[in-house]
Amino acid sequence: MHILITGAAGMIGRKLVHRLAADGALGARGITALTLLDALPPGSPDGFGGTVTSVAADLATPGVAETAVAGRPDVVFHLAGVVSGEAEADFEKGYRVNLDGTRALFEAIRRHGAPYRPRVVFTSSIAAYGSPFPDVIADDFLTTPRTCYGTQKVICELLLADYTRRGVLDGIGLRLPNICIRPGAPNKAASGFFSNILREPLAGREAVLPVGEDVRMWHASPRSAVSFLLHAATIDLTPLGGRRSLMMPGVSVTVGEQIAALRRVAGEAAVRLIRPAFDPMINAMFATIPGRFDTRRAVTLGFHAETAFDAIIEVHIQDELGGVIP
Amino acid sequence: MHILITGAAGMIGRKLVHRLAADGALGARGITALTLLDALPPGSPDGFGGTVTSVAADLATPGVAETAVAGRPDVVFHLAGVVSGEAEADFEKGYRVNLDGTRALFEAIRRHGAPYRPRVVFTSSIAAYGSPFPDVIADDFLTTPRTCYGTQKVICELLLADYTRRGVLDGIGLRLPNICIRPGAPNKAASGFFSNILREPLAGREAVLPVGEDVRMWHASPRSAVSFLLHAATIDLTPLGGRRSLMMPGVSVTVGEQIAALRRVAGEAAVRLIRPAFDPMINAMFATIPGRFDTRRAVTLGFHAETAFDAIIEVHIQDELGGVIP
Repeated sequence: MHILITGAAGMIGRKLVHRLAADGALGARGITALTLLDALPPGSPDGFGGTVTSVAADLATPGVAETAVAGRPDVVFHLAGVVSGEAEADFEKGYRVNLDGTRALFEAIRRHGAPYRPRVVFTSSIAAYGSPFPDVIADDFLTTPRTCYGTQKVICELLLADYTRRGVLDGIGLRLPNICIRPGAPNKAASGFFSNILREPLAGREAVLPVGEDVRMWHASPRSAVSFLLHAATIDLTPLGGRRSLMMPGVSVTVGEQIAALRRVAGEAAVRLIRPAFDPMINAMFATIPGRFDTRRAVTLGFHAETAFDAIIEVHIQDELGGVIP
Repeated sequence: MHILITGAAGMIGRKLVHRLAADGALGARGITALTLLDALPPGSPDGFGGTVTSVAADLATPGVAETAVAGRPDVVFHLAGVVSGEAEADFEKGYRVNLDGTRALFEAIRRHGAPYRPRVVFTSSIAAYGSPFPDVIADDFLTTPRTCYGTQKVICELLLADYTRRGVLDGIGLRLPNICIRPGAPNKAASGFFSNILREPLAGREAVLPVGEDVRMWHASPRSAVSFLLHAATIDLTPLGGRRSLMMPGVSVTVGEQIAALRRVAGEAAVRLIRPAFDPMINAMFATIPGRFDTRRAVTLGFHAETAFDAIIEVHIQDELGGVIP
């Protein structure tokens, strides 16, 4: 089978490519070709026996989406996008990349016509939701985003559902929890501190905490994110009906509970490396983020994640630090 | 003040233009200029003392939106759009007119920059909703449309909210009930029969009923639709917060109850002109339309409609038939 991954050079994209190349199969089918697309040049995975085509381009540029799907990939992982902070700071770029890029991809698929109908796994976000919230957000809660990024994600969810309904593709949108602990350097996502306050102390470095310890978030590890994507690519989506996007499982904790987990795993010395530097603007952004979800719909479909925050820290130590705290 | 009306040659658009021209004012402010835009040439209203600029063009055509807002209208009534049946039959046209046209309009407003920030009243639709439904749809029910038209309307609602949040415009989206009784010739809306089975018999003509009498719908008269638009253009929208689109009041009746009202108003001879011709496809479309709404949010803001279906028939007789059944 042939797989297209957009955003293949991103954090989740790289992990997904690595995993697909290592497995050499998705579900019961062997992978013969990978097409990797990103604004930055995506690297080729080691140890993969099939064909790899790397494209450094933006889906919103005319012709790029057509090129990306020219080989009629069986599965499309559509991860490409500008992150929340950048989409808010650069209004035009956010709409161009996140909305126009997605629409160009779906249109390129549509122009192939039947019987071509790929599975499309789209990464949406917790930013799909906007306050006011009930204590627990259920799967039938409305999506009223409060950011450009969230707006673009929900619009793409709507397009995904409509193109699916019309038989153009077989789509599922995964509203990802906050991915924690993000490895590597911080990106422009405003939510970066949720990872920074763990990753940096675990590496013996200081990290800034711009919000109060009562801020609550819904988290899953990068390893869980990859497992969501692989699972979404292989299951029967008929049970979704017309509602093609859903929240993924995660762990609900406050920042204070994150810090307590860090203390249990890495000790007080690590915790002392967190430097509170309250930022009213960032705090306000996350004071209105929903922190608890009822994800029974995803769980029924077989999606699962960590069930305790300590396990999320352990995944980071195993996958990024070679199993030991330096 | 200067008012722009897109879709000015449509059924609601013509009634709105007529009313604004007759009143010569909107709220407390006199109207000095009307810009009327439609794909069909919009006619000039009689008896209006101000300037009228008529533009026959499609908002999605490059440059048209810029021209439409060049005079910095204080209020924009954005009614233009391809109706449900046509948006489903012509996928590309539906997205181009309903989505790209709206986005072009909002972008043209954005490019003026602050302090320009017009009130934008956008007509959304009951098609924003998709099954499964609870018995009564409340204002926090999710929008999962099941048609291209509904998808395009919800996407425009999301854009309206985001452009409002960013201070580009001051927007409100009115999810209109089925407008009944539509005067004039049937259009391509799949919902046409709800009006046809009343309008035609009242004029002594036969009408086809393609669905079962148990199909339920949420109705308001054209006169109420115009009153919603005028009210939306003048009230303080701060109470809406970030949720800028809402369902308008209406009357919930089954087709059987519509027919019973016709019998009370016009007698058995009129009812005998309704010819049942069951169409499984149309019946299926409307078997999953939500028929009951809790519109307390709109009512609190001062929107109101008819409270009984007989009144909806009476409005048609008064406004379209000169007060008498021919």
